[in-house]
Amino acid sequence: MSEKIILITNDDGITAPGLRYLVEAVKSLGKVVVVAPDSPQSGMGHAITIGVPLRLYPVEIFEGIDAYQSSGTPVDCVKLAKDKILHRAPDICLSGINHGANHSINIIYSGTMSAAMEAAIEGIPSIGFSLLDYRFEADFSAAQQIAYRLTQQMLNTDNLPKGSLLNVNIPALPMEQIKGIKICRQAHAKWVEEFDERRDPRGEKYYWLTGRFQSLDNGQDTDVWALENGYVSVVPTHFDLTNYQLKAFLENHWNIFT
Amino acid sequence: MSEKIILITNDDGITAPGLRYLVEAVKSLGKVVVVAPDSPQSGMGHAITIGVPLRLYPVEIFEGIDAYQSSGTPVDCVKLAKDKILHRAPDICLSGINHGANHSINIIYSGTMSAAMEAAIEGIPSIGFSLLDYRFEADFSAAQQIAYRLTQQMLNTDNLPKGSLLNVNIPALPMEQIKGIKICRQAHAKWVEEFDERRDPRGEKYYWLTGRFQSLDNGQDTDVWALENGYVSVVPTHFDLTNYQLKAFLENHWNIFT
Repeated sequence: MSEKIILITNDDGITAPGLRYLVEAVKSLGKVVVVAPDSPQSGMGHAITIGVPLRLYPVEIFEGIDAYQSSGTPVDCVKLAKDKILHRAPDICLSGINHGANHSINIIYSGTMSAAMEAAIEGIPSIGFSLLDYRFEADFSAAQQIAYRLTQQMLNTDNLPKGSLLNVNIPALPMEQIKGIKICRQAHAKWVEEFDERRDPRGEKYYWLTGRFQSLDNGQDTDVWALENGYVSVVPTHFDLTNYQLKAFLENHWNIFT
Repeated sequence: MSEKIILITNDDGITAPGLRYLVEAVKSLGKVVVVAPDSPQSGMGHAITIGVPLRLYPVEIFEGIDAYQSSGTPVDCVKLAKDKILHRAPDICLSGINHGANHSINIIYSGTMSAAMEAAIEGIPSIGFSLLDYRFEADFSAAQQIAYRLTQQMLNTDNLPKGSLLNVNIPALPMEQIKGIKICRQAHAKWVEEFDERRDPRGEKYYWLTGRFQSLDNGQDTDVWALENGYVSVVPTHFDLTNYQLKAFLENHWNIFT
């Protein structure tokens, strides 16, 4: 059996510690190729670059690992990797390890998960990893063990549905305090915005987006519950945004459809 | 009953004809407030601005209509509108009318639909409108009639589920050739990337993202089918990305869960 190709990307940029820890964690499982943004791209969601041209350069940053940096978004990186570097689909795409949580509604804003989702749209099994610790100097050791275990499991599942995609969040705990791995649904939650309004030196107003996370879900089967209780959360994820429940409601209540 | 507040945004920018046509189409249904990006933001997906401060200025561009432009993404515009302009949730949020299709997988990349989704996350009924004609000089007259009809219908549905969200695409046809309105599911499809590789004057490589749309779905209940057959497509949409089918598969096949 030929060596597996493992594409790795992230949204914190090519120099983020979390990316290096992910490369180290899984490099024994196959041939790792890194294609990541040349600068931080947090909060980019599923953005693609269409108004300006993209750059792509090889970089010598991980010993013995082919690595490239791009001026584009995380999603651009996945597209470039497939079309311009690998010239084929990798066997798996890993994104992260993100510095900070991507559970519940955060998945929608997350460049980390959007990169993984882009690979899944291409039919590539894919996992996004996020550690619930924003700090540069965060301890990634438990996250590395979880990343290894889930990557190995996914690579070794022969009958995996095409384009399987997992959103994995790891609590900021040492491995011995992590209680286990829970398979979960995405918790219903939102951000309550609070814009920080300031004045620039010319007296013109400007705003920084801030806010606080608000869970709207009391379920014990959610990623938020799992993380609050010391478990790693794994949310199987897809990109069919059809709301079949609302579809049924409208079919019953609206008479405008043909 | 007090006048309804209709928030309008888009991703083509405050000066796009499609935005003006949407304002004109629905302004008789309530008090319209426009908050839109100051420049085109197509393909921004659900990006938010966190690395640079946001600007927000009133603009006199639509007669008798409060309008603002922001340096942010479409999603930022919705957040700013609620927190800094309206100081309350609007009764409905409309996004568009987009110059170009946002059916099937395009919803994932679409700033138009991400703005509408952001409103839905806030519990606001919301519709994204897209016309299947990219041209600046496109004929929006049928799209305007469809936008009026669906907005009126949504505003008049008292028992509408909270945060209902619709992805509406309108074929590039005169009204008399449109066969009707179909409620649909999102077609399974993807883009086959083809990067256009060029050299800049210094001899350095750069890339433009191009590609062609590929439908992977033969269903007659999809948005792609509806549009190809002369119907307006309406896809009820949500932001719970949990893949319950994959969840069941993994529960049955993986023994790593606690």
